[in-house]
Amino acid sequence: MDAGRRAQPLRQAGQIPTPTSQDPEQGLTEKVLADTDVLTWWGHMAHGQVKDEIVERVHKCVLNGMGLIVMHSGHYSKIFKKLMGTGCGLKWREAAEKERLWCVNPGHPIADGLGEYFELPHTEMYGELFDIPQPDELVFISWFEGGEVFRSGCCWTRGKGKVFYFRPGHETFPIYYDPNIRKVLANGVKYVARRAGSPYSLNAPNIKDPLSPIAAEHEVDESLHKH
Amino acid sequence: MDAGRRAQPLRQAGQIPTPTSQDPEQGLTEKVLADTDVLTWWGHMAHGQVKDEIVERVHKCVLNGMGLIVMHSGHYSKIFKKLMGTGCGLKWREAAEKERLWCVNPGHPIADGLGEYFELPHTEMYGELFDIPQPDELVFISWFEGGEVFRSGCCWTRGKGKVFYFRPGHETFPIYYDPNIRKVLANGVKYVARRAGSPYSLNAPNIKDPLSPIAAEHEVDESLHKH
Amino acid sequence: MDAGRRAQPLRQAGQIPTPTSQDPEQGLTEKVLADTDVLTWWGHMAHGQVKDEIVERVHKCVLNGMGLIVMHSGHYSKIFKKLMGTGCGLKWREAAEKERLWCVNPGHPIADGLGEYFELPHTEMYGELFDIPQPDELVFISWFEGGEVFRSGCCWTRGKGKVFYFRPGHETFPIYYDPNIRKVLANGVKYVARRAGSPYSLNAPNIKDPLSPIAAEHEVDESLHKH
Amino acid sequence: MDAGRRAQPLRQAGQIPTPTSQDPEQGLTEKVLADTDVLTWWGHMAHGQVKDEIVERVHKCVLNGMGLIVMHSGHYSKIFKKLMGTGCGLKWREAAEKERLWCVNPGHPIADGLGEYFELPHTEMYGELFDIPQPDELVFISWFEGGEVFRSGCCWTRGKGKVFYFRPGHETFPIYYDPNIRKVLANGVKYVARRAGSPYSLNAPNIKDPLSPIAAEHEVDESLHKH
Repeated sequence: MDAGRRAQPLRQAGQIPTPTSQDPEQGLTEKVLADTDVLTWWGHMAHGQVKDEIVERVHKCVLNGMGLIVMHSGHYSKIFKKLMGTGCGLKWREAAEKERLWCVNPGHPIADGLGEYFELPHTEMYGELFDIPQPDELVFISWFEGGEVFRSGCCWTRGKGKVFYFRPGHETFPIYYDPNIRKVLANGVKYVARRAGSPYSLNAPNIKDPLSPIAAEHEVDESLHKH
Repeated sequence: MDAGRRAQPLRQAGQIPTPTSQDPEQGLTEKVLADTDVLTWWGHMAHGQVKDEIVERVHKCVLNGMGLIVMHSGHYSKIFKKLMGTGCGLKWREAAEKERLWCVNPGHPIADGLGEYFELPHTEMYGELFDIPQPDELVFISWFEGGEVFRSGCCWTRGKGKVFYFRPGHETFPIYYDPNIRKVLANGVKYVARRAGSPYSLNAPNIKDPLSPIAAEHEVDESLHKH
Repeated sequence: MDAGRRAQPLRQAGQIPTPTSQDPEQGLTEKVLADTDVLTWWGHMAHGQVKDEIVERVHKCVLNGMGLIVMHSGHYSKIFKKLMGTGCGLKWREAAEKERLWCVNPGHPIADGLGEYFELPHTEMYGELFDIPQPDELVFISWFEGGEVFRSGCCWTRGKGKVFYFRPGHETFPIYYDPNIRKVLANGVKYVARRAGSPYSLNAPNIKDPLSPIAAEHEVDESLHKH
Repeated sequence: MDAGRRAQPLRQAGQIPTPTSQDPEQGLTEKVLADTDVLTWWGHMAHGQVKDEIVERVHKCVLNGMGLIVMHSGHYSKIFKKLMGTGCGLKWREAAEKERLWCVNPGHPIADGLGEYFELPHTEMYGELFDIPQPDELVFISWFEGGEVFRSGCCWTRGKGKVFYFRPGHETFPIYYDPNIRKVLANGVKYVARRAGSPYSLNAPNIKDPLSPIAAEHEVDESLHKH
């Protein structure tokens, strides 16, 4: 996670803690996560420093219903790769080029209040192939001046949790001050937030008693089983 | 992976090697995998003994286009969990009950030549909730005498590879001798087999030169970047 | 649409008008639809009597963001078939058998507050193959005592609108008095309700002026076009 | 359907009949369709002249397993709208601009043998929002010089049939002579071609006899039913 100057506008909205690398639990204690409805994740060079046990902990929380928003270079974080099951690579270029994000799902809650497209005058380019599973919902596709396209707003369900990946963001461009970007993130937080839902278990329980009767004639020969 | 008596009918079809745990590479060397178009995976109690480096190797091969068929208790294998990104838990019961598999995708290649349903007289039950990402394609749903249902035939794309999970199978019931089961597996092998496709990379390459011209006026101030 | 005794509990919740067939606009005037956030649709024998122009009108409203909940025998209504693009057939049997609905999407808003399954003691059976496009979201799968399964809770997006099909319901069984059914319907109404979203057009507009400059050298020879 | 000069390269491949509007069955008799594994559909100004009964006939054939490839301005044909359930509108511009098609599904059979992208120097632009249901499989996304993006290669399953929409094509640009375009179409024909599959019915049959026994105590009171 990144605690840099560019996270300032997000912190103002009270959305994320910005843990430091001095903390042995890296800011993500069991208690903090249990109290979290939506975790936003932005990191870059330090992905490798996030401990595997913390990644496991966050993964369990997402499966149990915590929302997760992964931003920009968070595409290469351990937690995003673990939730996707793919390599999550992409093409990139830093040329301060123009990006135009087109909405391809106009009724989606994350697109609420936005135009049919919006622009960022100077961005780092991310280009296809973006190595992700096909999104459950594709909301935005980006056009880049230099010739690439990108699936920039993607949602997936994992267990009881919802994951939203949103492409824009950078250390040096003031992306998170842009009003459209802030609207998308605010919509996204509402969309992926934890819900009560129905029961969910990470176990694989043995259900000895059937709910409906099983015919006696084909009772199993227990001597065959060493399960 | 399981080398037991029940794998005999599959071995006869020449589909799988059955490595032993004595082999340090567990039968899955780089060379074997490079020559493999479809890997079928069946295991149970010994999932934990499959080495993480072997799982990484198989994962890369799937992303690069090798087909993977995961059968029955393979749902809890490291490789399946890694590809899914979820816990992959389910309910289970050994009561030799009847299972009826309904086809819900009648034009799917995996359903080729099958009826609208087929039955297994005595099976171990697997019940929902099956903790998987929503399948890209759902082919079969099982009905169990004891009262549960299960998404029994599911396909996902990961990278260039296709993954097919098929539920039936057991150590003590002669599931893999059943002609419908064998037809599904033969169809499945054809469906997920490696294809040429288009280029795919696990890297995240920097594309310095744009494909289309970028307006000069917004060239980036390189001094801002310490990427 | 059905105005029968069984719709009583739904009317109490203020969710649906129950138009009569004497009305030339069949209760669905432009004004009524413009004021509607969610339309619930239940009909049976009289599907053919719904006028094509009314179906067109409802279709446009769904594409423009009105939510639609289609219940039980509404699967064979003109509007559902038009939105799906398939035949929407299914198997059915009236034998007062038991149905058990399993949740396969435990974090979904429509499953909020429900158990991992719930039961209906006496129902009409609907069985696969249900001839629908694969749902964008599958929430419930039904188990029937007589041996069938069914995708009982399914969501699709069409234009800006969301469609939720929910299987249970019958003229003679008191399905809509069941507290779980009522919870699903209340959740469903919230889930599919109209949102602001982003702009949407049913037209195919000619965009003469490009947003980004097009190189002059490949200007088109207008004489070639008789578009 | 369009019988113009630009269809010449497709005719050479023996893929399509090019019926004339003088034919009362518009070239699509029951017999022709029964013998057809894949129908390719390209039309423009004359969509309205295709008779509704012919559209119904083609629709039934697709549901029963005939493959359908819809090209370019076929997006606005009656048959495509009927299969999609949406308005199928899009933006368009004729400015002879450059199009670059990016592959976002590198293992897909339709991408076989293609590069990570390919270009068309002069095309008519089609831009988002493309009013379609989210594709079951998205294969290509187009970048346009003038600033738009488009989901250019999309697959859906309807009944037993597969539908592939492919954007490029025009009356005045020699799109169908381009070797990449021809490769996509050849791959597409193989991908959507009719398969045996499992049984499929457009009816909604009453299944009087259950497959598994139903407890006697809740037999239905037949006097209640006037189904």
